[in-house]
Amino acid sequence: MRYSKLFGKTIKEISNKYESRSHELLTRAGFIDQVASGIYNILPLGTKVMTKIEEIIRQEMNNIGGQEIAMPLLHPKTLWQKTERWQTVDILFKTKSRFGYEYVLAPTHEEIVVPLAKKWIKSYRDLPLYLYHITEKFRDEPRPKSGILRGREFGMKDLYSFHENHDDLLAFYQKVIKAYLKIFTRCGLNNVKITEASGGSFTKKYSHEFNVTTSAGEVDLIFCNTCNFTQNKEISKLKTGAKCQKCEDGILKTGKAIEVGNIFDLGTKFSEAFNFCFIGRDSQSHIPVMGCYGIGTTRLLGAMVEVGNDKKGIIWPKEVTPYHCHLVNLSHLSNISDLVYNTLKAEKIDVLYDDRENISAGEKLATADLIGIPIRLVVSERTKNNIEWKERTEEKKILLSVSEIIEKLHQFYL
Amino acid sequence: MRYSKLFGKTIKEISNKYESRSHELLTRAGFIDQVASGIYNILPLGTKVMTKIEEIIRQEMNNIGGQEIAMPLLHPKTLWQKTERWQTVDILFKTKSRFGYEYVLAPTHEEIVVPLAKKWIKSYRDLPLYLYHITEKFRDEPRPKSGILRGREFGMKDLYSFHENHDDLLAFYQKVIKAYLKIFTRCGLNNVKITEASGGSFTKKYSHEFNVTTSAGEVDLIFCNTCNFTQNKEISKLKTGAKCQKCEDGILKTGKAIEVGNIFDLGTKFSEAFNFCFIGRDSQSHIPVMGCYGIGTTRLLGAMVEVGNDKKGIIWPKEVTPYHCHLVNLSHLSNISDLVYNTLKAEKIDVLYDDRENISAGEKLATADLIGIPIRLVVSERTKNNIEWKERTEEKKILLSVSEIIEKLHQFYL
Repeated sequence: MRYSKLFGKTIKEISNKYESRSHELLTRAGFIDQVASGIYNILPLGTKVMTKIEEIIRQEMNNIGGQEIAMPLLHPKTLWQKTERWQTVDILFKTKSRFGYEYVLAPTHEEIVVPLAKKWIKSYRDLPLYLYHITEKFRDEPRPKSGILRGREFGMKDLYSFHENHDDLLAFYQKVIKAYLKIFTRCGLNNVKITEASGGSFTKKYSHEFNVTTSAGEVDLIFCNTCNFTQNKEISKLKTGAKCQKCEDGILKTGKAIEVGNIFDLGTKFSEAFNFCFIGRDSQSHIPVMGCYGIGTTRLLGAMVEVGNDKKGIIWPKEVTPYHCHLVNLSHLSNISDLVYNTLKAEKIDVLYDDRENISAGEKLATADLIGIPIRLVVSERTKNNIEWKERTEEKKILLSVSEIIEKLHQFYL
Repeated sequence: MRYSKLFGKTIKEISNKYESRSHELLTRAGFIDQVASGIYNILPLGTKVMTKIEEIIRQEMNNIGGQEIAMPLLHPKTLWQKTERWQTVDILFKTKSRFGYEYVLAPTHEEIVVPLAKKWIKSYRDLPLYLYHITEKFRDEPRPKSGILRGREFGMKDLYSFHENHDDLLAFYQKVIKAYLKIFTRCGLNNVKITEASGGSFTKKYSHEFNVTTSAGEVDLIFCNTCNFTQNKEISKLKTGAKCQKCEDGILKTGKAIEVGNIFDLGTKFSEAFNFCFIGRDSQSHIPVMGCYGIGTTRLLGAMVEVGNDKKGIIWPKEVTPYHCHLVNLSHLSNISDLVYNTLKAEKIDVLYDDRENISAGEKLATADLIGIPIRLVVSERTKNNIEWKERTEEKKILLSVSEIIEKLHQFYL
């Protein structure tokens, strides 16, 4: 992609209107654009990253037997009355057809997925079942804030599981924990804390959150400085400075975090609301046990930037970078850089090519740092027929031939 | 995928509740499931097809310079007041936050894309610009009908183009026509009629519809039986039986059709509403000329089935089939069919494998015909170590070895 043609050029001006570091960097680098409080456009660079995030999630959901579906965003009122959430949940957006029908704008999908599963699940032979989808959600948040970290409209993956019994749910629950850690690691988040938390408004049972520790977060954690013990402060009865009861070695600390995922043991709450039964191995009627497992996809985009940045801009993890490399032409001619661009493209390398004329070298290099693609390649009068390779996180620059660049890129992204 | 594990098994019962042939077949074959009037779940098989449809659209949009973005579905009231559509458009779903903010649920995206483009387009050098997205839309239809052919919530791709002048728009308009025909051809729709139509509620200028002729359609066409002349009857002053004025040879006929796409010359209507100007080559201020170009993605799914079916079920076009082949085990043992399944998967062939036990041969073959994957492979006591190959549209069956099957599949899907 030629940067001269890319929609959503970087914004040089620094302003105090930004709600968080990720809000600022994603906006100034041209990944997102605010429409209203809690409502955003995702620009071409942002769409590239979102597509990669969603593909990682899909792969890991499919790996544990998840089947992808697409559920609607307009939910008939009657379904939400069955679970009593029409009356009790305060973050619902509602809408009414001019023909009298009333709907909820989906904030979550239990009211759809349970009646759906009920249509086909008749026997224990049809269980377990794992259905997921990736879609928009709507929540009438009192304070949308921190850019895309908390929106009124946001992207989410949710997976729903149905089981014969509680033990089967618990076994799958552990599989999802592993799949989630894999997803977050692939998204460059190596330090996600699995947190014991309350069941929230969905269930009275326990739940687990996946939290990325950062001062920009809204969640208060208490965690051990030695082992992986972590609790949400809301439910914790422990105090800072106390000895960890799990490892009996570390000391408890507190810190802020962004919740990027959560998993709930829903028990039979929703199955019961819809009179959902199946015939068990004992030929008797039973109620399926359910779990639900969410990942905030647009929030993940924000969390990645909250954690992956320096003074100059964003630092993208390899697997979700919008382009493999950022090729910058600092020469007065474009013949060599054009050739490099076309050669790399022919090798199926995704290149963002800053081909702009009449822009200073300083501005072009600042643009590359702000956008944050892992590899920067520079062609200039000084590099002659070679190309300067620099990684976003390193200071070292080396001169390489085109064929060496290709080999090094393939190695880097292996 | 093992059919025994697939969510959304075929429904044998025939019922008169279905609103159209595609509604019946997509439901009975396990591709879609109705939630409420005009609102659907897309099941795993349907999601596979939708993903392929969307990927074809993406490729052809990118080929003509389109840049993918994601725009929100909650649109602030103020933006829709600027174009006066808040008051005048009757199919709007509206919603209100408990904090007083009012929103439109997106039926189209001019109110978002114009202010967005305005932020970055300052000069003729920033033009032309082509932005598209693929997302859900909402329309408060009086009569949702014909299954997914007309929903209250539906999938749509829309592309918006911005130009220096009208000539530039017209040149791009022709490019989009070609891209659309390519998309529809790749979706197995070879007989799409480009139809002159009115500008609808969006514009007073002319527009073109892309119509798939079928008796299940809602659009009335008048068209030449010899050349490609086609008009929407709503705007046509011509009569059935008259001589075609274009080719001066054919005779005009009428017929029903499904509108799967449309393109509009929006002129400066929306640019003006948002005071959107740019500095032209003459250093003067000008208003960008706009085009918009839609494809109903879920409607396309319905149209493909409306056109591609026989008495036994669906007939999927090659490029959008949910799986490459449907492997049916009719043997009492599964050792050979399991081996074939694993061998094909290792060759990166997508296989739907009917591994069910205690289901009759007749039912399994009827399931394969109903689902409509282009290639059916049967393993049975009779086929021994070979496999029976049958194409969905042919009666002929041939026995082949596994390696011949692999070669023939690769050729078929080349």
